[in-house]
Amino acid sequence: MASNLPQNHLIGSSSGNFGQALAFACQQLNKRCTVVVPKGAVAAKVEAIREFGADIDLIDLSKISRRARLLELATQFPRAYVASGFDDELMIVGNSTIGRELAALAGKVDAIVSPVSGGGLASGIVVGLRESCVNIPVIGVEPLLANHVTRSLRAGRRIEDPSESATIADGARGPSLGTRNWTILRGALRDQIEVSEDAICEAVRVLFRFANLKAEPTGALAVAGLLVDSKRLGFRRVCCVVSGGNVDASTYAAIISNIDVRHLVQTDGNCVS
Amino acid sequence: MASNLPQNHLIGSSSGNFGQALAFACQQLNKRCTVVVPKGAVAAKVEAIREFGADIDLIDLSKISRRARLLELATQFPRAYVASGFDDELMIVGNSTIGRELAALAGKVDAIVSPVSGGGLASGIVVGLRESCVNIPVIGVEPLLANHVTRSLRAGRRIEDPSESATIADGARGPSLGTRNWTILRGALRDQIEVSEDAICEAVRVLFRFANLKAEPTGALAVAGLLVDSKRLGFRRVCCVVSGGNVDASTYAAIISNIDVRHLVQTDGNCVS
Repeated sequence: MASNLPQNHLIGSSSGNFGQALAFACQQLNKRCTVVVPKGAVAAKVEAIREFGADIDLIDLSKISRRARLLELATQFPRAYVASGFDDELMIVGNSTIGRELAALAGKVDAIVSPVSGGGLASGIVVGLRESCVNIPVIGVEPLLANHVTRSLRAGRRIEDPSESATIADGARGPSLGTRNWTILRGALRDQIEVSEDAICEAVRVLFRFANLKAEPTGALAVAGLLVDSKRLGFRRVCCVVSGGNVDASTYAAIISNIDVRHLVQTDGNCVS
Repeated sequence: MASNLPQNHLIGSSSGNFGQALAFACQQLNKRCTVVVPKGAVAAKVEAIREFGADIDLIDLSKISRRARLLELATQFPRAYVASGFDDELMIVGNSTIGRELAALAGKVDAIVSPVSGGGLASGIVVGLRESCVNIPVIGVEPLLANHVTRSLRAGRRIEDPSESATIADGARGPSLGTRNWTILRGALRDQIEVSEDAICEAVRVLFRFANLKAEPTGALAVAGLLVDSKRLGFRRVCCVVSGGNVDASTYAAIISNIDVRHLVQTDGNCVS
């Protein structure tokens, strides 16, 4: 996205990994980058965004939404490009490289399980598999506390959570699928699984113990889906997409020590149940 | 080693990763496996050895040394092969595949830094590089609390620690280099760095935070070497070999939370200073 846009200033909103990626790409291309970050975002992610040279625009979600702040910045910087982390053709094309990589697993796995929240990652996977003419079922997983994908699929229309969720999976707190992502995913997702906060933490522990992988809670969503619903999945060989590892030491230490982590979740939004 | 030996029963001694590897290889080949494990070894490693189907022979190091117990077992099972995790031609050949992989970095790195304790890994790296006709300096790192390599290099002869060390780097507690490893390494190691327990823990944190890698203390030795002695190294581009990720959750949580971990180290041996 950063290399294919004519603009020299990119603005995005992210609680973490997209912000890092955007900041890094802009640094490589000598472009200016502004990232809107809600207060309470994971410190490790915010520091990384800053280290990659981006301006951080810290907002209080109880006073202004991400979207409203992006509109303000778009007015303030009319020549900048306001980039969505998921609802953007170029982002989906970028993420489709993951689908093309996964296409190499044809015949070796029966299903691919991926986190779905805004839908950027999952729609990239779907598009990449399709471009490779490979037909592996894709199953989505989202936190029960931010279950707009399940509710949208049930209703047959894109439903938004009333406010940002308090799930520990901070990368899945956004309130809705993007419109482009909904168009791609509504007919393509084989299934969507909702997982509890406990299951997410257990998945982080499973990845720590059995795969020696440091996964952040959002990155462990797919494994959490397997833990809670392996029967419904009914597949023998499953590829779980572990989509991130950026988590603060205190949160991670509490999770692997099996300490109650609810007090560690900082958010200005409310849960959606 | 397991596939190239005629024996159907392999016996080894290991506080962890070698035991796991031996157990796994024997399971694949339907061979019997016995692993001598000292009390106080990392629980995650012991469980993994058991899960791979090996018999665990638990010993109390204050009553019998690993070597003495291996001799007892060799007498009890005269048809078995007693395998060293480092001082064995086949082990060194196996580890040389790492050196051959690293040879692909020729021209891209100025040095390779690796943990050295028994010397199995490092001599494999040296042999693999040599076989690939690639000349990248190899630098070893060991805990200050188990510094027989440094003392051996200084003395020009293989020196043993008087007893097993209490270093948190449990994979580097063995008291000496193997004889084959000493022969290979004495002229081949460009340098050897001793690191404190604090530096080892800091390296675990650095890998957690900046590389999203779950490394065990022994696996973080090379990075610890960089942290304490980057000037002496004097190289611009360094490849650190991170040689393992098996660490108990309680120890890992304490390290990344920067809690004093000395009480977590269980050993029946004494420190060597």
